[in-house]
Amino acid sequence: MGRRGTLLSVRDDIKVVDVTIRDGGLCNNFEFSDEFVKELYKTNINSGVDYMEFGYKASRKMFNEAEFGKWKFCKEEDLRAVVGENKTDLKIAVMADVGRCDYKTDFLPKEESVIDMVRVACYIHQIPAAIEMIEYFHSLGYETSCNIMAISQVPNEQILQGLEMLSHCSVDVIYLVDSFGSLYPENAGVFAQQYMEIADKYHKIIGFHAHNNQNLAFANTIETLSYGISYLDASVLGMGRGAGNCSMELLLGFLRNPKYSVYNLLGFIENYMLPLKEQGVSWGYDIPYMLTGQFNRHPRSAIEFTADKKTNYSDFYKSLIEHD
Amino acid sequence: MGRRGTLLSVRDDIKVVDVTIRDGGLCNNFEFSDEFVKELYKTNINSGVDYMEFGYKASRKMFNEAEFGKWKFCKEEDLRAVVGENKTDLKIAVMADVGRCDYKTDFLPKEESVIDMVRVACYIHQIPAAIEMIEYFHSLGYETSCNIMAISQVPNEQILQGLEMLSHCSVDVIYLVDSFGSLYPENAGVFAQQYMEIADKYHKIIGFHAHNNQNLAFANTIETLSYGISYLDASVLGMGRGAGNCSMELLLGFLRNPKYSVYNLLGFIENYMLPLKEQGVSWGYDIPYMLTGQFNRHPRSAIEFTADKKTNYSDFYKSLIEHD
Repeated sequence: MGRRGTLLSVRDDIKVVDVTIRDGGLCNNFEFSDEFVKELYKTNINSGVDYMEFGYKASRKMFNEAEFGKWKFCKEEDLRAVVGENKTDLKIAVMADVGRCDYKTDFLPKEESVIDMVRVACYIHQIPAAIEMIEYFHSLGYETSCNIMAISQVPNEQILQGLEMLSHCSVDVIYLVDSFGSLYPENAGVFAQQYMEIADKYHKIIGFHAHNNQNLAFANTIETLSYGISYLDASVLGMGRGAGNCSMELLLGFLRNPKYSVYNLLGFIENYMLPLKEQGVSWGYDIPYMLTGQFNRHPRSAIEFTADKKTNYSDFYKSLIEHD
Repeated sequence: MGRRGTLLSVRDDIKVVDVTIRDGGLCNNFEFSDEFVKELYKTNINSGVDYMEFGYKASRKMFNEAEFGKWKFCKEEDLRAVVGENKTDLKIAVMADVGRCDYKTDFLPKEESVIDMVRVACYIHQIPAAIEMIEYFHSLGYETSCNIMAISQVPNEQILQGLEMLSHCSVDVIYLVDSFGSLYPENAGVFAQQYMEIADKYHKIIGFHAHNNQNLAFANTIETLSYGISYLDASVLGMGRGAGNCSMELLLGFLRNPKYSVYNLLGFIENYMLPLKEQGVSWGYDIPYMLTGQFNRHPRSAIEFTADKKTNYSDFYKSLIEHD
């Protein structure tokens, strides 16, 4: 399977998905100011971004609303306070984790909601549960995606089986997710071709969600898109859990479709992202995340180490090899 | 031309070149403490690094010695103060810029020097001058490389002609240099294959020197090496002019040859690199460098903008489009 398009071509199938509030919310407990979210919404519209993910639809039985910012729950009234009826070309997405949301009670029928797409996140063993949720969301009228996490630790035959199962359900988009930031472009490209082969067979769409542990989030995104992956997750300044995601400013600067504008993003970075960094909200490439990426591990221990403002990297390295 | 080796294989032809003092010296006027340089030398030995570039052999007629740290000049006695007779596997390199060094007077015969390799940096139109220098260094007994800069603004037929000319001289290693950090892995890979085709024909070696403007320094390095490029420039924490270089810690973590050790580098990062950052020495991925990379421009204006601690990125963007 070859590359689709060239470095100069416009691929109309490509959709850019802003995950700043959702994945970035993991860095600040979803406590963004209303102004921040409104300005990001306007910025995304002006920059040609296709989808904006506002956060999670987390279970309010499982998580105490008082302990998190509102974007962990994405209530309809909170979304509408930002987007009104959303009479724009920007579509609205939310994430629903398998096992951490009350999907039967917390979603309105599509015609009563400003949400366009529900993204279902699951581990490989949760694919049957994900399919049940996807069919439900589909019946409500939503676009759906399934984001299969942590695949760098899953045997390849299980991944292929999972993709086959999903391909027989109503899901629109299946995501290749590099949860641990452990993929190199060369093996991300191999995964991309495997996912695309199944997508082409069953008329599904493939997306990619990167993490920047090895400073490869953008590189892996443009490598996988070259093989036909078309839903591309990115966040402003790469804001996201741990090492963060693919940077929106890099991705928009790469894409040749004139509807995408880096320029329109720069004002938001100056006025809203830099203050966030100054307030101490922390994410991005750093040695501990690099090490968990190199070891193909969950970044949990690196996040703790970094939160404690530790810099004894040698000890952190030794703690990683002790676990083996 | 296909890839050589796989993500798991050991390529004995690969040589890792530490450019921290030389390219990093452009960030702090070459004012590293003696202890810093000595510890980096020891760290490189322990980490399996193959070459350490100590700095420039700049003309003392053209540059006032009092205005720069000693590594802009790399006098033999300064090198020996660090490495003694250098009875180690780590080779010593210095850089000589075409038109900015007094090479006929400032180099000893190899048998009187601890320098192993002289790296000649030039622009495409200076290749005849570079060849003259290379032949001179070769006659003194040194290994040589030629680093052709700024090729992203040179017509391809000129690059190929330059490579042919160099292939007929005594140079050992020819470098593909992404001076502006404007290459994507996809076109860096095409360059790599062009350079390797000529290298294979004339028994030359190809190296790669990356800049991190678009956060692609490491990605481009591992992409080009996959096509057979074998001399790989990197610096600790990516320290280098503007957006910096390929990070040594990422590269050593990628290479599968057990002689390379990330662990041995971590102590140096903790104890010597973090203090440098704290002192305000500045380099690394940032919006202004990203923009000059996207525009395929010299980072000069971004370096000034960043040095002035400005963050009005929108204005900087507009200044870039004004020049067209």
